[in-house]
Amino acid sequence: MVSAQDSTITSSSFSDKEIAELFSDVGEIDALVLFERELARVQESLQIIPEGIGKEIYAVLENAKFDTELLATGFENDGIPIPALLKQLREQLEPAVANYLHFCATSQDVIDTALIIRIKSAVEIIGKNLKGLTAELGRLAQKHKATVMIGRTRNQSASPTVFALKIVNWLAPLQRQQQRLNELLPRLLVIQFSGATGTNAALGNKGREVSSALAAALGLATADSSWHAQRDTIVEFSNWLSMTAGQIGKMAQDILLMAQNEVGEIRFSGAGKSSTMPNKFNPVLAETLLSLASYCRSQSDLMGSTLVASHERDGVCMSLDRLAFPPLICAAAASITQAIKCLASMSVNEEAMSRNLIADNGRIMAEAAVFELVKSMKRSKASALVRQACELSLTNNSHMIDELQSLSDVNLNWDELKKPKNYLGNAEEVIDSVLQINS
Amino acid sequence: MVSAQDSTITSSSFSDKEIAELFSDVGEIDALVLFERELARVQESLQIIPEGIGKEIYAVLENAKFDTELLATGFENDGIPIPALLKQLREQLEPAVANYLHFCATSQDVIDTALIIRIKSAVEIIGKNLKGLTAELGRLAQKHKATVMIGRTRNQSASPTVFALKIVNWLAPLQRQQQRLNELLPRLLVIQFSGATGTNAALGNKGREVSSALAAALGLATADSSWHAQRDTIVEFSNWLSMTAGQIGKMAQDILLMAQNEVGEIRFSGAGKSSTMPNKFNPVLAETLLSLASYCRSQSDLMGSTLVASHERDGVCMSLDRLAFPPLICAAAASITQAIKCLASMSVNEEAMSRNLIADNGRIMAEAAVFELVKSMKRSKASALVRQACELSLTNNSHMIDELQSLSDVNLNWDELKKPKNYLGNAEEVIDSVLQINS
Amino acid sequence: MVSAQDSTITSSSFSDKEIAELFSDVGEIDALVLFERELARVQESLQIIPEGIGKEIYAVLENAKFDTELLATGFENDGIPIPALLKQLREQLEPAVANYLHFCATSQDVIDTALIIRIKSAVEIIGKNLKGLTAELGRLAQKHKATVMIGRTRNQSASPTVFALKIVNWLAPLQRQQQRLNELLPRLLVIQFSGATGTNAALGNKGREVSSALAAALGLATADSSWHAQRDTIVEFSNWLSMTAGQIGKMAQDILLMAQNEVGEIRFSGAGKSSTMPNKFNPVLAETLLSLASYCRSQSDLMGSTLVASHERDGVCMSLDRLAFPPLICAAAASITQAIKCLASMSVNEEAMSRNLIADNGRIMAEAAVFELVKSMKRSKASALVRQACELSLTNNSHMIDELQSLSDVNLNWDELKKPKNYLGNAEEVIDSVLQINS
Amino acid sequence: MVSAQDSTITSSSFSDKEIAELFSDVGEIDALVLFERELARVQESLQIIPEGIGKEIYAVLENAKFDTELLATGFENDGIPIPALLKQLREQLEPAVANYLHFCATSQDVIDTALIIRIKSAVEIIGKNLKGLTAELGRLAQKHKATVMIGRTRNQSASPTVFALKIVNWLAPLQRQQQRLNELLPRLLVIQFSGATGTNAALGNKGREVSSALAAALGLATADSSWHAQRDTIVEFSNWLSMTAGQIGKMAQDILLMAQNEVGEIRFSGAGKSSTMPNKFNPVLAETLLSLASYCRSQSDLMGSTLVASHERDGVCMSLDRLAFPPLICAAAASITQAIKCLASMSVNEEAMSRNLIADNGRIMAEAAVFELVKSMKRSKASALVRQACELSLTNNSHMIDELQSLSDVNLNWDELKKPKNYLGNAEEVIDSVLQINS
Repeated sequence: MVSAQDSTITSSSFSDKEIAELFSDVGEIDALVLFERELARVQESLQIIPEGIGKEIYAVLENAKFDTELLATGFENDGIPIPALLKQLREQLEPAVANYLHFCATSQDVIDTALIIRIKSAVEIIGKNLKGLTAELGRLAQKHKATVMIGRTRNQSASPTVFALKIVNWLAPLQRQQQRLNELLPRLLVIQFSGATGTNAALGNKGREVSSALAAALGLATADSSWHAQRDTIVEFSNWLSMTAGQIGKMAQDILLMAQNEVGEIRFSGAGKSSTMPNKFNPVLAETLLSLASYCRSQSDLMGSTLVASHERDGVCMSLDRLAFPPLICAAAASITQAIKCLASMSVNEEAMSRNLIADNGRIMAEAAVFELVKSMKRSKASALVRQACELSLTNNSHMIDELQSLSDVNLNWDELKKPKNYLGNAEEVIDSVLQINS
Repeated sequence: MVSAQDSTITSSSFSDKEIAELFSDVGEIDALVLFERELARVQESLQIIPEGIGKEIYAVLENAKFDTELLATGFENDGIPIPALLKQLREQLEPAVANYLHFCATSQDVIDTALIIRIKSAVEIIGKNLKGLTAELGRLAQKHKATVMIGRTRNQSASPTVFALKIVNWLAPLQRQQQRLNELLPRLLVIQFSGATGTNAALGNKGREVSSALAAALGLATADSSWHAQRDTIVEFSNWLSMTAGQIGKMAQDILLMAQNEVGEIRFSGAGKSSTMPNKFNPVLAETLLSLASYCRSQSDLMGSTLVASHERDGVCMSLDRLAFPPLICAAAASITQAIKCLASMSVNEEAMSRNLIADNGRIMAEAAVFELVKSMKRSKASALVRQACELSLTNNSHMIDELQSLSDVNLNWDELKKPKNYLGNAEEVIDSVLQINS
Repeated sequence: MVSAQDSTITSSSFSDKEIAELFSDVGEIDALVLFERELARVQESLQIIPEGIGKEIYAVLENAKFDTELLATGFENDGIPIPALLKQLREQLEPAVANYLHFCATSQDVIDTALIIRIKSAVEIIGKNLKGLTAELGRLAQKHKATVMIGRTRNQSASPTVFALKIVNWLAPLQRQQQRLNELLPRLLVIQFSGATGTNAALGNKGREVSSALAAALGLATADSSWHAQRDTIVEFSNWLSMTAGQIGKMAQDILLMAQNEVGEIRFSGAGKSSTMPNKFNPVLAETLLSLASYCRSQSDLMGSTLVASHERDGVCMSLDRLAFPPLICAAAASITQAIKCLASMSVNEEAMSRNLIADNGRIMAEAAVFELVKSMKRSKASALVRQACELSLTNNSHMIDELQSLSDVNLNWDELKKPKNYLGNAEEVIDSVLQINS
Repeated sequence: MVSAQDSTITSSSFSDKEIAELFSDVGEIDALVLFERELARVQESLQIIPEGIGKEIYAVLENAKFDTELLATGFENDGIPIPALLKQLREQLEPAVANYLHFCATSQDVIDTALIIRIKSAVEIIGKNLKGLTAELGRLAQKHKATVMIGRTRNQSASPTVFALKIVNWLAPLQRQQQRLNELLPRLLVIQFSGATGTNAALGNKGREVSSALAAALGLATADSSWHAQRDTIVEFSNWLSMTAGQIGKMAQDILLMAQNEVGEIRFSGAGKSSTMPNKFNPVLAETLLSLASYCRSQSDLMGSTLVASHERDGVCMSLDRLAFPPLICAAAASITQAIKCLASMSVNEEAMSRNLIADNGRIMAEAAVFELVKSMKRSKASALVRQACELSLTNNSHMIDELQSLSDVNLNWDELKKPKNYLGNAEEVIDSVLQINS
């Protein structure tokens, strides 16, 4: 086991068990065989193959057996598993029945549809987990609507915010991901069934009829045309997976930064042991999420290359699907479940948020102060005064607003200007409007 | 000029002039200033700034002048163009008026909204050109609905198809791109206006009111929350651009392969001179399109990294937007216009398509033959016979069906089995259903 | 098993068995434990730990047992395997002995050195196989020094070449890869042993002494400074792996193109069955090699991101190493062994090479003709004449040189000008000089 | 100007002026023409072209004029600039002379050699600047050999280090880059001169002779075989450029993190104004460097795709060279010069380093404490005690060592154990050994 997603030691960090099963050898074979079974049944019902044959194929292959070694040899020879798989399936059928297995289908019909069958199952799990994550983020935001903290732009203290608004930055893109998923699924969840070069030639004029019935049997829709060489729906979904992991990566990045000792606004108390340093509580899950975000981006980029497929079907792209997609979907799915775990295992240190605000000595109120001063002087003068007060505050380790008061002769409610909670604008309104989408 | 998109010699191959103007320095400054002008006017109408001020800002800055060198120095110092730009704009206003320029906005509000303003204009051009391309593909497909040719899978002759069906593989994904664009635009075409850390704090409780009015003035929608650190809509659009170029790359790949001398099904007669070989007609536009596909994928992948933005606003991501997005959108737009040129400049050689079919000596009818034979024998026997006939056909340079006839004692209409046009299944039906979407 | 490199069905196509073992869980644990054993022995010999202790650790842990489930839980908690591994190792030692296990080391010391230990073994295998591949290419080139064929530039017939010269394009970059490998190995094959933040603080002033002895024991060199956060040597090697696969991908691309039916210069007769088309012989190995080239490039790019490690050690980068490196090295190694198989299983069709030359009808001699004509007329006139002759040749399906003879009144040995073998310049000289490097 | 590297406002941040000139249109044309001039002179001296002709070409074309519009049209038609360029050059020569321009060369000979000519000049600049950067890093390290600070692993306080050792992490990989550059240059700085398909056929048996003389004239070496389709040397150098920027990105990442307000160990006092917040000093140059690192990685990855070139010369790859390489080399060069500026403009706040150590309350000495305690108790007990002391220190806001003293009855020099400077191991020795390489 070369892949960290398959390693018995590391797979639970980088993969998702349920999704991994769908994309295992067994998961693939199950879906491949399901295609052949449903195809046979459908073709019998449409009188394309003799009566009884479809039912028999359906029944017998429910418990088909496989010689993995022969499948491996077959794959090595053919670059696809289908010829060897069919050979084994046929051996488990009466010769007269075997004739009608995989009738009028081409290898990639089976491979592509089996991919979609598994994606459909995977999307149900992923969608459910994503809903769990957005719900959890919603709860956390609800709880921290009044938790004032330093807002940071360009990695510098900027002006006050509340923790819930930071969470909104994690939540709102995921809400849009749910919307995007709803939009793309009708394009994605379609069967592939068009024969060797997309014409269903072997079926004469019955291609569409069989397609419709097969799609219905598999709980999928039909495609207007063969997508053997139209890989956009898979690439679109790959991008979706990568974007999901990337957006979660943004959350992880914020958490990692907030968990730095000097910041301390988030702590991971239970985990992240060091082999020699008992003082360490490493932000393991944030790290994992960040690595998954990068990993997914890379695999999704690779999937993007399959758009440039040659002619009617492209064997290089088929191999790339095989190399890049299962790791991608497992990693993206893991990033959702690990994100939930991350939120559950971290503790928000509101005291540290306050302490950091205090340590800032009011410099974070610079913008607020400018806007107050501007009421009675030119903006450039106001900015200059506040900048001077900021510098004095740094030098004297004094409160910026006190310095500003000394510097100016304006009459202001200086005490109120010291309070970050007075400078939060429409934060609550924004938070509420985003939380409402969640429900 | 380091970029091939800016070079006076090469830009017309790798960029799109109209889009490039939008994403030039002038294009950006125009959009930045437009934001400030509309903001002022809106704030005046909402009585946030004194009467007359907004109108004056709006009027005076219509013809604002800029010292590019100072803007450059400013960018070098600040990593963003806004402080230096504002300084220059303020110098062109009365001091009392200047106070109210950029009132309660933050740099990234202007930068992000200016990006969207230009994207909106770009999307109109790109959408129109994309429609032109799909229309052209539709016409070409219509013309070649009966142009029989070799269908090729895994870069090998497989079974017959028609040229229109190959074109469907180019067209259908682009039709879906149009659908995707319609879905993503409402998410994308929204203003950014939320102040330093997303709270519109400087506006007290008037943030939403100003946002709505500003959005209306700019012909955009509002966002539920600040997207300074929510880059998913930009990344989604970047992926869309890259997918568009990638799908066109697939068309180019097919064309490049069909234009090989030994295949000869497409010719570029007018172009592609060699410096020494008068026999050469290089498939220049197909090459260009393939390079654009790769280039867009790479820049879009880079854009994907901006999802992992730090805290409330991230300066690294802002620079990456600046480095990767304009080249991406120009290249993707170029791939559409160059695709149209490519279709216009190439000639389809139907004779070569026939000649290749003839040269194949009927081996392409192998699948058809198996399905005929299977009516009177076991599949495995049928396959074995046809395989043997294929080999004999290669060895003897004879027609596969003739060899098959010699090998078998089945009674078939062998002459009809020789005709590729008899083995096209539902190709026409598929083509029609895709062409219908176009109209 | 999510990864195609771990799948029992597909791993032999996309991975290399020997390398995969090194990068399996067992392979990693073996190397991790080896580090701890050698460290103990070395520390005993340097009197850093009590006499007998090192020998005991070394002996007892030779047959250490592991509870994989506990290791998995440990990894989940810590993001690294070391704390849980050490816990299990300590339980297999007397308490007094256990105290001195992993003495003064940090987790990443073990992880990084264990990576290098395995890379060293892997490089021996890879180097040997690469030598096998270059030798095979050398033999093939030797055999085809006089096999004249069409040279193709920009996917168009250009001027004559010999097959050996095409092979030189595959071989020469691999020879340079061998040179590059020799250059990078001294940088790469160094131990990591520097304690928590790179100071070997726990060892007082004995850090270097222990490092040297440990390196010697492991057959590695020492590093001047801790490379916990200096990932350039790993990235350099990752690039090397990806370049190797990429260069082999170029060979595969040429083979894939030459194996097209219309070209037919290479055939894969034994393999690549289709599920329904007995006429197909798919270029499976060429496809596999092309997919591996793309896959390696993608993983190597991901490895590149680890250069930007934070502070003294970065947990995100450690996870990325784990996700990207083993698949990369296995895929690159597979591309070498699959390349050897590809060469062994393909047959070169010299007759098709001749046939294609004949079918070209002498247009490939256009450059040669220009250079002959130029001796007695202006270049522009010569070019124009030859271009005209090329066009007539296409129209009349006649030999270009015959057309040219009709068009011009120059006295030339026209028959000699028809022979591609007369226009090969210094091909043989070039081939010989490259083959000489091989030996 | 679409590219941020060409924008008059932003180019000085993302590009390097000297390198940009080399890779401008003018820079390319100069190198292209130089090739043709030297070729003519060399061919005259070897009596391949008539006496006087070479000298005349050399002299006349020194001041060649160009019609950029025609060059642009030519590029659009041909996908390469050479045919149009030659046409214009020929018009500036006597017809009899023009015949011998570009004699026996192919377009890509000129294009590739012109690339190498410019790379050679660029490498001189880059090498010099890199030396400047390593020297500056050396000085900074020298200055901070005793500047004790918190060492951070996995973004958490770990154990003490000195600032110089952090600088070593920035410096040592750059030293190795210098070594790598020396190794790769002999492979890279070679001319391309082999005619249409790599045989120098037009020169009969004189290919090597001309190559050697031409290489000498251009100050380059010769290649064993044509590298039209062997792109490894360009890709190797692209990787080198990207690695350089990536390693500098690591420095920038550390600086960005150290410049956070809560950490404050580095300050950028002069720059990074905000449009509304006078309290901000944004780490602009660190941001720029990080964006350049990502940008270079992306372009270098794209260059990697050119390894898979088709046949004897590949037009797609030629376009990719044009799209990706100039931006890559300019960005990488900029990252070096911006890094020097970054070091010059930042101030190291030793006081903050001390303050952070103090605020840590001795928890950073956890590992040191364990190693002291282990002398008189079992490791597991020592670890447990120290962990308890760390927790008490956090809860009570007390010094960890004081807590530990209360918890244990061991007799230790507790005061010495409180001092981070006592736990620096061989830091100085490591620093010295790396600095020595610099000199």
